[in-house]
This record gives sequence, structure tokens and C-alpha cells, in this order.
Amino acid sequence: MKIAMAQVNPVVGDLNYNAGKVEKYTKQLKSKGADLIIFPELCLTGYPPKDLLLRNDFLEAVQKTFYQQILPVSKGTAVLVGMPTYAENGIHNSAVLLQGGKTIGTFHKTLLPDYDIFDESRYFIPSPHEKCVEFKGMKLGITVCEDIWNDKDYWDRRRYGSDPVSELAGQGVEMIINISASPYHYGKYSSRVDMLRNTASKYGIPVVYVNQVGGNDDLVFDGSSCVLGTHGELLLQMGHFEEDVALFDTLSLGDSEEKTVINDSDDMRWLYNALVLGVRDYFFKVGFEKALVGLSGGIDSSLTAVIAAAALGSENVLVVSMPSRYSSSGSLADAEDLAVNLGIEHRVISIENMFSTYLKELNPCPQSVMDLAEENIQARIRGSILMFISNREGYLVLITGNKSEMAMGYSTLYGDMCGGLGILADLPKVMVYRLAEYINRNGTVVPVNVINKPPSAELKPNQVDQDSLPPYEELDSILEAYIEENKSVAQIVNMGYEPDVVEEVLRKVDSSEYKRQQSAPGIRVTSRAFGPGRRMPIAHRWMSSSF
Amino acid sequence: MKIAMAQVNPVVGDLNYNAGKVEKYTKQLKSKGADLIIFPELCLTGYPPKDLLLRNDFLEAVQKTFYQQILPVSKGTAVLVGMPTYAENGIHNSAVLLQGGKTIGTFHKTLLPDYDIFDESRYFIPSPHEKCVEFKGMKLGITVCEDIWNDKDYWDRRRYGSDPVSELAGQGVEMIINISASPYHYGKYSSRVDMLRNTASKYGIPVVYVNQVGGNDDLVFDGSSCVLGTHGELLLQMGHFEEDVALFDTLSLGDSEEKTVINDSDDMRWLYNALVLGVRDYFFKVGFEKALVGLSGGIDSSLTAVIAAAALGSENVLVVSMPSRYSSSGSLADAEDLAVNLGIEHRVISIENMFSTYLKELNPCPQSVMDLAEENIQARIRGSILMFISNREGYLVLITGNKSEMAMGYSTLYGDMCGGLGILADLPKVMVYRLAEYINRNGTVVPVNVINKPPSAELKPNQVDQDSLPPYEELDSILEAYIEENKSVAQIVNMGYEPDVVEEVLRKVDSSEYKRQQSAPGIRVTSRAFGPGRRMPIAHRWMSSSF
Repeated sequence: MKIAMAQVNPVVGDLNYNAGKVEKYTKQLKSKGADLIIFPELCLTGYPPKDLLLRNDFLEAVQKTFYQQILPVSKGTAVLVGMPTYAENGIHNSAVLLQGGKTIGTFHKTLLPDYDIFDESRYFIPSPHEKCVEFKGMKLGITVCEDIWNDKDYWDRRRYGSDPVSELAGQGVEMIINISASPYHYGKYSSRVDMLRNTASKYGIPVVYVNQVGGNDDLVFDGSSCVLGTHGELLLQMGHFEEDVALFDTLSLGDSEEKTVINDSDDMRWLYNALVLGVRDYFFKVGFEKALVGLSGGIDSSLTAVIAAAALGSENVLVVSMPSRYSSSGSLADAEDLAVNLGIEHRVISIENMFSTYLKELNPCPQSVMDLAEENIQARIRGSILMFISNREGYLVLITGNKSEMAMGYSTLYGDMCGGLGILADLPKVMVYRLAEYINRNGTVVPVNVINKPPSAELKPNQVDQDSLPPYEELDSILEAYIEENKSVAQIVNMGYEPDVVEEVLRKVDSSEYKRQQSAPGIRVTSRAFGPGRRMPIAHRWMSSSF
Repeated sequence: MKIAMAQVNPVVGDLNYNAGKVEKYTKQLKSKGADLIIFPELCLTGYPPKDLLLRNDFLEAVQKTFYQQILPVSKGTAVLVGMPTYAENGIHNSAVLLQGGKTIGTFHKTLLPDYDIFDESRYFIPSPHEKCVEFKGMKLGITVCEDIWNDKDYWDRRRYGSDPVSELAGQGVEMIINISASPYHYGKYSSRVDMLRNTASKYGIPVVYVNQVGGNDDLVFDGSSCVLGTHGELLLQMGHFEEDVALFDTLSLGDSEEKTVINDSDDMRWLYNALVLGVRDYFFKVGFEKALVGLSGGIDSSLTAVIAAAALGSENVLVVSMPSRYSSSGSLADAEDLAVNLGIEHRVISIENMFSTYLKELNPCPQSVMDLAEENIQARIRGSILMFISNREGYLVLITGNKSEMAMGYSTLYGDMCGGLGILADLPKVMVYRLAEYINRNGTVVPVNVINKPPSAELKPNQVDQDSLPPYEELDSILEAYIEENKSVAQIVNMGYEPDVVEEVLRKVDSSEYKRQQSAPGIRVTSRAFGPGRRMPIAHRWMSSSF
């Protein structure tokens, strides 16, 4: 049997567009002799469709699209498509197997994730049982995403009581198929493939894994679909961060050469590609072409401009430097260098007249008193200028803040937090530097001075970040322990940090929650990003150290 | 047996504070002869504790607090307390029954809500079974919140397969106790009491309902704890939107006079009290005292100032009018009238100099071209001024936008959307007018002119809202159908509205999602608010009318 895998990039809610992808790839792969063409989880709706799934009109439109566009394409060959299906007491997240213009099997997701960014119990009811299917003489076990992530021998702590794969293996299936919408984060690919290898070798059954690709708001799906052989060997590896198709013959699968599993947690290319795809898809899917970046001459805004140019083309990126009385002359020169390196338009608009007007109107005397109000008003003038250009000329403003700053509230709400998408919002500062080095690997794109100078908000004379923050290596390590690993003050102190420093960092993280809840989506690249994956109350008084 | 009900207002995460409430009320009610004192759902952590529940240090601190502060208070009398408890594979949302310094029974929540603002499957595992308990010779059925909301005869559509109340009734319980954290929305009280009455009369068993009170971020809990008799009669009614305690004797319960059930969906007092408590608690729980409101002289900002003054005291509210070249002279006079009526400080800061400086720096010629960029920059100057005062003087800025505007994106991001809490953010404009009438019921607080003049953003000459929006009666009806009832274009058109109008409204709601995801929490007063209760993708292309 020839099996094809179609790693598609759907648009959430655009049923015609997504069904068109199914039609196009089915036609193409059928012509290459595919007996079965596999599409990702919920590829008809895009993932995650969120509360669109609570709308009857949406679910009815899914049905209509299914009958009008999806069923017909199965006339010539079999197709496995991820979509919501109706049940008596709710809806299922299903893989629907079609052949000859008819549904020949429907397989519902059993394990519904409710952690991190996932809310599947909000939308779906679980499958009541596992059932295999015989197709072209082969017994297949068809599973959906999370169903394959609960092996009792593989995980130290299992999330669910049952294991669909084990049940299907017990039914004697000869192949496990898993359709997924598994979002990327740093190091996810290696861990995912390792888990898939384990499953295949444990049961001695090939595993066919078809994942969604593309950016949807804060999430980026890496694709990376693959096939594992009976010994867990990686026999087929599809593209990362791009649409891709593949075809293999089940009879000669074992003859394929084994592929090397990349360690993506030590490879900046993955991060870079994730961010580029995240930006490109956000613009494409919301219908914008042009990006605007406030370029301070610092490393964050420089990297944001580089990624925007890679995603959208340098002709679609405008950078604006907005120097103040506290800006160093080096900053402006660095910004200009970067713009030249990228071949992007660069405007310079001084904020001095606006700043002095605010001071004149709001200060008791027009002189600067250099308090927080004056620091922040500079950032807010810059935000207002960017939004003015955005409103007048149709640019979407990109936010340049990194995760370490967002964590500490080291950012000005309605100032440098203005914009529609945060490119580095989930990237710790240390990783920002590593990414800059990666970008410069074949020659200088990010000016060396941008990388080497001490980071500064330049909102008062001679200000540098390290005046108010611990060294970034230390800070990022504390933040990772607190945010990604939920460690306590005591546990973090045991890692070797000063109690005072740890408590101060955690206190700042907690007390700046109100800022983060007003930030635009940021592209998720760690195992725990701010946003829908971390739901914290604002008005709370928990502090770990007090216990 | 004498049963006491303690309707407390916990602070999320403040275990000492919340345990102190249990200690205080237990002491007080014990002295009045209570045999059992009942506290609300998760009263030890506050509700909703959100991702604090994912932290081991938090759960350990809950245990520690329980052993050190809660268990000892049960030495003299029995106490029923809502708190998370450990299970083998997760944690339960439990009601713990204590007596003589020992736990004598633990009753876990069976039905875990995952709709609207609820995410309980993210945190809890359900109870595997229902069990009653014999206490002082009486068989009690102890349930937690949602457990009582799934009667198969009462609801057209049930959410869950099982009904804990029915199972407990089958076990012959003589009283149903329900501890809750049930948030308020407009009309919720009447529907809740109706459901409770039905439960009591259906089984002929008294129902004792103890609800949390207080504001937590976007949610306001109304309390309204009560006791229903065996015929469903309302025998005991506790306070609304305030801490309260009550005590009754099970033997003489039937002798109580029946109370009238208020219809809260026709009573503006409920809305008003919800908003006042929401503001008061937000400030108290985040540790702010002083509120700042940008006062345009329009109805929204006027009402926001009125509610802030009621919540925080007029000495703690500062209103700032920021007239521009497009402001009517009437607006400033109206604002001054309101400030005088409320006895609050009123400052006037013209934005003219800032506005003309921006135009000079950003326009090709310094004259106004009156485009969207110029409209929005005025709102952003105002936002920047408010944040300047906030940063310098320690005020928390309140957002004045109403739900109709938020729905339509008729607001300026980083402009009038600046602030920490939206007071009217979930109140449709028509309700804003009704609330103003309520506020003026005993004499003019909101100047008549504020209520009577056509609403206007005053961002360009002679601008009124109705230039860009349908009449508010029509708009609010369409919005309610779309947002609260998930109706389709076709269904809304069938209500009697023009297809073009409906489609345009829905399109605007969808396309302004990016703004709402950057807004501060707004106090929830309808059955479906923007925010955590409505999770929509930004980059999606669903449009009901295209199907």
C-alpha cells in the first residue's frame, strides 16, 4: 500500500481554503499512486479553532464543507482527514477515513489535553473506546495527537489513566497512524521524535505521524511529520516549518535508509525558522503585508527587524528610530547600519519636541525631574508615533520586547508594548544573543556594536538594564525555573542564587502580570509562554517565600 | 442542629488572610451555638486561583495552612471548608468536614465546568463517586457548586451524564449542602434561586447554598447564599455583594417566613452593586487606593467616575478632562458639573499643544488632514497623560469604554483603552443609560445633559457615534445575539435586522478581536463577557454569512 502524508498549513476558520488544500494535495498525490492520503488533526478547521467550535453555524458549515468538498475527493483514493464530528452529547475531535465518496471509519480522540495552551475539554468529548480498522488488508490503529503521548513506561508521570496506543496494539494493529496539531517549542522536535521512536520499537509497529504546519496567533506548528520503523528507526522525515508532502510504500518501508534525528535544542535554525514562519503566517492570515518596527539600535529591535525582513521581504519592512535627549549617538548609527544591511527603509523622527511639550504641560516647571513618569512618557510617545504611522500608512507594528523583560515588567505599557505581535516575547534575553550570533553566522547582519554594547532602555542618562536587573544569565535561569518549571523560592535558591535576588525576581514577575495581560500575542518558543498557556490571577497575594 | 453559613470574601492566594476569615467567623458563630459552620468553595485559596493550582509550593502551603490554622478551629465545633485536596492522580476540588480537630469526611466535586470562564479540568480530577455523611444524626449530601446544576428534568440540555444530587437523594439524604463560587451576571440570581427551589421541592429536601462573595479580577461573586425548604420555599436569604453570616436551626427551619425572590434581571441595583464591589475589591486586592478617570463629559466616563467614587470614596478619585480643538464647550461644563456633584477633584489639561506638536512633526504640513491617525493620536495623548499622572502620583487608571464599543472596536488601543480595569467593559450601551437613570433616581448625580446629548468621541468636528454605528438599541440586540447566544447571521437577520447591517456588525466584532486581547480585565456582568469567557483566534477567516 502506498501511503501519502500531506503536512498542510490551514487558516483557522477558512473552511473553503482548507478544503481546497485537501482537494489540491489529494489530486496531486493520487496521481502519484497514493492509496491513502493523510492530513493533520482538525485540518479542515485549522488548529486551534477555539470558541468557533461553540458556534452551531460554524459546525454546520464544517459539515457542509465536508459533504461538498471533502467527500467527493475521496472518490478516487482514500483520505484521512482531521475534523470535528457530531456525537449525541457533544462533538468529537476526529480522524475521518473516506473512500469511494463515503465515510468508512471515524476515529475520535480519546485523550483531551487541558494543560498549557490546550482547552480540549471545553470543546470535545472523549472517544468512548479504541477501535482499529482494516484497510487494504492492513490493520491500522488511527489516533489523534495526545492519544500517542501517554505511554506508561515512557513517562515518569502520566497525565491520563488509559493508553490508546497500547489498546490498539493489543488489537493487533500493524501500523499506528497519528494525526496531530503539535505546536513547536525549543527542543520539542527531539523529544517528540524520541517518544515516537519509543512507541514504534516498543510494539514493533511502524508509526506514521502527520503534523500540522504554520503559525496561528501565538502558536507555531513545525510540521516535521515522519515515519518510524519497527525498531524505532526514523525512516522518513518531512520538512520543518513548511508545507510538505511525502509518499511511501508500506512494503518497502523497511528498506529506507535511517535518518539522523536532529537535536533541535541546540540548533538556532529551528528558533529562527519558527519566528520567521510565525510572523509570515500572522501577516498572511490577518491580511497585512507591511511591518513597522521601532528601532532603538538595541539588540531586540534589531533582531525583530531582521526576522520581519526575512518573513515579509525587506521591501515590506519600515524601521523608525525615535531618538531622545537620552539616546546615545551610537544607537542611531547602529540602527542605520542595520537598515543598510537589511536594505530596508529607515526613518528618523526625534521625540524631543513631543517630550518637551509633555514636560511643559505636565511638570510643575518645564525642567525634567527624571522620574518614572518621564521615563515612560518617552516610550509612550514612541508608541504613539508608530501607531500614527500604522494608522496612516497601513503598517502592522511589531513588538520588540523579549521574554526576560516581559517577565520582569521591564517594559512600558502603551509604550514599547504597542503593536500587534511580539516576535521575541517568549525568547529569554540570553537566547536573543544566541539568535543574533546565528543570524551573523555567514557575515554581519546585526552590527557587532549592537551585540556588544550593554543593553539599555535609554530613558534617562547613562541608564543600563543591569542597573535594575540581575545579569541576564542569572535572571534567565531563575525565570526558567519559576515560569517553565514552577519551582519554589526554596528550590531556586538551592540552585545557587541569593534568596534576596530570587524573591525580588519572583515578586516582579507576579506584580507585572497586569502588563502581560494587556500585551499582544507573542510567538511561543519555550515550553511555557506567557499568554494562554499560563493563566494567572492579577489580584492575588500568593508569595512562595512567605511559607 | 444549628447550622451557620459564612459567606466570605477571600483574597486569591492569600492563605493566611483566608484562613483568618475562617478562624474569625468560626469563633463568632460558635459563640452563637452553631454545630456546623459552612464556608464557600475553595474559600481557603480564593476562587479562581487559576495556575497557582499548578504550583507544588502553593499546594503544600495550602496543606500547611490547613493543618496549622483550619484544623484547630474545628476543635470546638464542626466546620465545612472548601479547599483543594490531594488525590493519587491529581487534586480534587473538595469540601472538607472537620470536627474535634480532625477531618471526618471529604467530599469532592464531581462535575467540573469547562465552559465560559471555567477551566476546572485543567486543575482538578472529578470525584469517582457520591457519598453521603451522617452528622449529628442527620444524613447530609455535601456537593460543590456545579454538582447541583445538572438536573435532567430542569435543563433542556444537560452538560454532563451524571447528577450528584439525584444520587445523593437516592441515598436518602435529609439535606443537600452546596458550597459554591458562582459568579454574578445580570439575571443570574433569579435563575440560580429558581434552580435551587426546583432541587429542594423535587426531592422534598432542604437545600443549603453557601456562595463566595467578592470581586476577583474580571469576576464578581454576589454571595446571595440561601436556604430552600422542602417545598422549594426561600426560607433564608443572605446578603448580596457583601460578607454575611447566618444561623438557623434545622428543627425550626420550616417555621421561617417565606422570602420573596427578587427578579434581579429588572433591577439596576444589582448591576450597580456588582460594579461597585468589583472596583472596590480590585483596588483592595492589588493594593491601590486612588483611581484616575479621564472624564470627557460623556456618559461612559461619567458613570465610571460615579462608580469609582462609590467604591473608593470621593476623596480617592481624580477626574481629568483633556479637551481638544474638537471638544464642545458643553463637554467641559458637563464634566465640571459631575465632579461638583460627586465632590471629587477635577483637573483640566488641554491636549492642544501636544496634538499640534505631533501634527507638526508627523504631518507633511502642520495642518490637520483629519484621518484616522489624527483621530487616534488624540486618544493616545489622553492615555499618555493619564498614565503620566498614574506613574507620578500613584493612581490606578480606570477604563471607561462600554461593551458595545469594545465589541465594535470603537475605541483607540493605547488611547482610551489605557488603564487597569474596565468598569463598563461588559455593559452594553443601552444598559449604561439605564444605569445612569438608576444612579439619578434620588436626585441628579449624572448631569441631565450628559444623558441627553448624542454620544460622541469628539475626535473630529461634529462627530457622533451614530455616524459609524447603528442605533444602540439595534446594535446591542445584534451584539447580544452574536456574543451571548452564538447566533448566526441568518438567525439574527430573522430577528428583523437588515442583512447588511448584521454582517457589518459581525465583521467589526471579529476584526477588532486583536484590540480586545490587549484590553485590561473588565468587570463581567453579562452571561458572556469578552475575556477569558470568550476565547477567539485573532488570525482567522470564519464568517458565518459566507455559508
